[in-house]
Amino acid sequence: MGLQKTLELLDVALGRRPADMVVKGTLLNVYSGELIPGTTVAIKKDTIVYTGPHRDELSGPNTLVLDAGDGVIAPGFIDGHTHLDYATPVHQLVCHSLPTGTTTIITETTDVMATLGTAGLMQLLDGLEHQPGNVFFLAPQVVLESFYEQDPCVDRENFRRIIEHPRVLGLGEVYWPLVTEGNHELLERIRMVQERGLQPQGHTSGARGARLAACAAAGISSCHEPITAGEALERLRLGLHVMIREGAIRRDLEAVTPLKDLGVDTRRLILCSDGVTPAALLAGRYLNEVVQRAIDLGWPPTAAISMVTLNVAEHFGLDHRLGGIAPGKQADLVVLPDLRQIEPRWVICQGRLVAEQGRSLVPAAPAGYPEDSDRGFQRWRFRPEDFDLNLDAEEVRVVQVGKGILTAETRRRAGEPGLNRLAVIDRKTGRPFVCLAEGFGLRSGAVALSFSWDGSHPVVVGVDGNEMAFAANRMAELGGGGVVCREGQVLAELHLPVSGTSDEESLSSTAKRLEAAESAIRSLGSSLSDPLLVLQTVTFTGLPSLRINPSGLFDVRRKTRVPLSLA
Amino acid sequence: MGLQKTLELLDVALGRRPADMVVKGTLLNVYSGELIPGTTVAIKKDTIVYTGPHRDELSGPNTLVLDAGDGVIAPGFIDGHTHLDYATPVHQLVCHSLPTGTTTIITETTDVMATLGTAGLMQLLDGLEHQPGNVFFLAPQVVLESFYEQDPCVDRENFRRIIEHPRVLGLGEVYWPLVTEGNHELLERIRMVQERGLQPQGHTSGARGARLAACAAAGISSCHEPITAGEALERLRLGLHVMIREGAIRRDLEAVTPLKDLGVDTRRLILCSDGVTPAALLAGRYLNEVVQRAIDLGWPPTAAISMVTLNVAEHFGLDHRLGGIAPGKQADLVVLPDLRQIEPRWVICQGRLVAEQGRSLVPAAPAGYPEDSDRGFQRWRFRPEDFDLNLDAEEVRVVQVGKGILTAETRRRAGEPGLNRLAVIDRKTGRPFVCLAEGFGLRSGAVALSFSWDGSHPVVVGVDGNEMAFAANRMAELGGGGVVCREGQVLAELHLPVSGTSDEESLSSTAKRLEAAESAIRSLGSSLSDPLLVLQTVTFTGLPSLRINPSGLFDVRRKTRVPLSLA
Repeated sequence: MGLQKTLELLDVALGRRPADMVVKGTLLNVYSGELIPGTTVAIKKDTIVYTGPHRDELSGPNTLVLDAGDGVIAPGFIDGHTHLDYATPVHQLVCHSLPTGTTTIITETTDVMATLGTAGLMQLLDGLEHQPGNVFFLAPQVVLESFYEQDPCVDRENFRRIIEHPRVLGLGEVYWPLVTEGNHELLERIRMVQERGLQPQGHTSGARGARLAACAAAGISSCHEPITAGEALERLRLGLHVMIREGAIRRDLEAVTPLKDLGVDTRRLILCSDGVTPAALLAGRYLNEVVQRAIDLGWPPTAAISMVTLNVAEHFGLDHRLGGIAPGKQADLVVLPDLRQIEPRWVICQGRLVAEQGRSLVPAAPAGYPEDSDRGFQRWRFRPEDFDLNLDAEEVRVVQVGKGILTAETRRRAGEPGLNRLAVIDRKTGRPFVCLAEGFGLRSGAVALSFSWDGSHPVVVGVDGNEMAFAANRMAELGGGGVVCREGQVLAELHLPVSGTSDEESLSSTAKRLEAAESAIRSLGSSLSDPLLVLQTVTFTGLPSLRINPSGLFDVRRKTRVPLSLA
Repeated sequence: MGLQKTLELLDVALGRRPADMVVKGTLLNVYSGELIPGTTVAIKKDTIVYTGPHRDELSGPNTLVLDAGDGVIAPGFIDGHTHLDYATPVHQLVCHSLPTGTTTIITETTDVMATLGTAGLMQLLDGLEHQPGNVFFLAPQVVLESFYEQDPCVDRENFRRIIEHPRVLGLGEVYWPLVTEGNHELLERIRMVQERGLQPQGHTSGARGARLAACAAAGISSCHEPITAGEALERLRLGLHVMIREGAIRRDLEAVTPLKDLGVDTRRLILCSDGVTPAALLAGRYLNEVVQRAIDLGWPPTAAISMVTLNVAEHFGLDHRLGGIAPGKQADLVVLPDLRQIEPRWVICQGRLVAEQGRSLVPAAPAGYPEDSDRGFQRWRFRPEDFDLNLDAEEVRVVQVGKGILTAETRRRAGEPGLNRLAVIDRKTGRPFVCLAEGFGLRSGAVALSFSWDGSHPVVVGVDGNEMAFAANRMAELGGGGVVCREGQVLAELHLPVSGTSDEESLSSTAKRLEAAESAIRSLGSSLSDPLLVLQTVTFTGLPSLRINPSGLFDVRRKTRVPLSLA
């Protein structure tokens, strides 16, 4: 903050010149935990300069005065764990988050990294200051698959460049098996991050006792994976910031809610999304919905709101500027009808009125995506035989899907009914690895999608090589996107030109096309409720069990590659 | 933390090798706010690697096992605001703090800076890693007196060097009038500190409303000056970390205690000393006494202990390593008989058993004081006429002392009874400024002391020039110290060879000599309960009202120099 700006803030605080904006109402003070009626919040530029009883000198002829009446003024919401990976480019995410009261987004970057590379990621980071909301990144995590090949997705030198960026708040979610096995590269990166005063975030799903303690001992500072009150309590006791996930991937809030009756301190509890869909954003549902759900489940409203404001800001060392309403803090706030109705009437971010009654008042600012982001897709051409199975035996390992985003290993004979072919295409070389999958339930056609977790390799599922080659070729022609086809006809498609993961133009068109694609997939025979989510996570080594990547099958529990054929 | 060390921590956490130390008892978990009986805390090197139910594999033949029985294991205490200035060198402070359970000290450095300069301060900072306790510094604050002469006690370049040291946690207590008047140098230093991710600490005594808000707007993050519950609440609501002072200078805890009945969140409340005397340290009274007092006043024990552990660590961004008991945190802990009896049976710091039943088990490690620290005193020789008053009129401004460490301006005729002469000697030039003081009550003799707040200039008070010159010359001969004399006889003296502020050798001898000096001062006629404290604070511009410095009288409320004589 420059000297001139500070002097202007002081002038307003001291009553020497009027504020730019004044908001009047009942203040939710997350520092003291109080509701304080009759409070005036005065704003100059992007900063709150005064909170307290009204003072006439704060308002001048050009001051925007928002009188909330009986309404509650709360801090803007902060999503402490989300992903930029699902069809929503960063500026669309920001623009559509603001009307929900979500003024700050802290996102993982592994997928962005896999598609844009270090230069693209740095370009994106540099462009964030022009966004009308606050966006922070976590450095790309250490990807299990890559590490088993001794080929980190980002090398140490580039990793260092990334963590030195002021918008990078830590290391992205660390998968716990890498910790307990003492992966040297991971531990070195934890050290690098800690030396910068930043914290490594954790993904400790299912870990407990000695292994969970080991993760904390190695420096993991948070976890967003507890799915019961007991798991949340164990993590809290270990000093971790506990993020309760309620979003696109899973909804754990109800199962964790019994925690509220144990009388524990809630200062280290956080509510997060772990990802939001375009459809939810367009419907105006994001952290507002999560907080509402927490209140409806019986969490005290003040605690619930602190779990998306001060608690998150403190965890990430942002509380000197974000997470509460007080002089010196950034002017990010929401005005609610009352403390139990999380429907923002006004949203102010960076001192600007950015949304009113669910409508955004600011245009999406252009994001800094590299113009030449991955166009490699367009050169690919597939033949049906590219999707042949390469078998040495009759009996094979099959990826079973359908239980959320978990997978299991089953063993089948290659010709058994109910199986589909599943392929992952190496993003760099365009070469597919093909295996069998059970649970997609396609009786005809194929589906291609140009991204997947965490390496962002394209994935294809279908009934045979002809169908799969057609879908994959159309996806390549589009330069990235999703395609559902049958017998040489496209049933549904969407264009994701930004690195094959998102479309900069219109989130509503993307959302409609995603919905149409899911309908089309169901018309091919699938009964999955979330078929595109299941498809994009067949590669995900952060959860059990049998996963695929461009070089083969991977058994997450045993932490080893396994052959397709059973001897 | 090096890779090899992390691997060793993981080995112990995972049960592959035994711990160095195991402590068993009821854990006070400051993260969850719970008391958890039957907990084992396992330590490897300086780090906690496991907390939870006992596991046999944690103990080996060389493991030190401390069984607390029904006792409570709590985190080591952190003093979030103290001063190294009062006769106690840093290694003596650390060594005597440990038996009280105080394992971390965060100290101001303005006085150290004034005596040692940047090079000495950096040398001291570099030597702290060898101490058996944890010591962190705040960068020298902006001293009011100096700034009015446009002569900061440390220039910007050296200030930058200081704040880049990893043991420097912020900017020392900022006096609020400098903020509200928009002092450019101060605001620039606040910015420099914030850019490092550090926080400026505040001294906002008496400020409220618009002016207090202005301090927060400018970036002040804490205050240790509230002396009522109302003042504490106002600061808490403004997002400040509120430090409740209970120590050598003042005891505010009882007056602030009604805050506990207001139902406010206590996460941003901190208990601090603002300075501890050698006598208190030698009697084993430091933060243990403060916490005990809080509990005796009715604060819930868990909240009171959090106010010297997690809350402090969070404020200073140290909570990734300090302030709680969990894997990955530094092994700093105290074992108490029970939650309401703050008498540490064992104290562990940095993984070592450092104290047992109030006795230190570790020798004082040598501190890194520069060997040639200020010997300039020894060249000084004063004549009686150096302490003559320089008057233009009969009526003069008089510094009135006696209300704690506040002063007031009174107006007297030079010859009136009950007045003493008071002098401040410029530490650089050896030149005194002389005025009149009321309230010391000396009827004979003089007192000289080789330090004072904040510029560390020597001070002398006495009945005439003969007595004052004798005392000052003896202080100079000693090369720093305190002298009480009458008619050419030394009644009491103490030697403070380290920059005229402390003695490296023996804290108990210093304490005894301080006590003897205070008795001697009373024998000269003074009825002040703390005459040496009053004397060393006549220079202090952080509190009202009339203060003196080497170039004259200063009116703190009017923020201006004032002449001695009234026209």
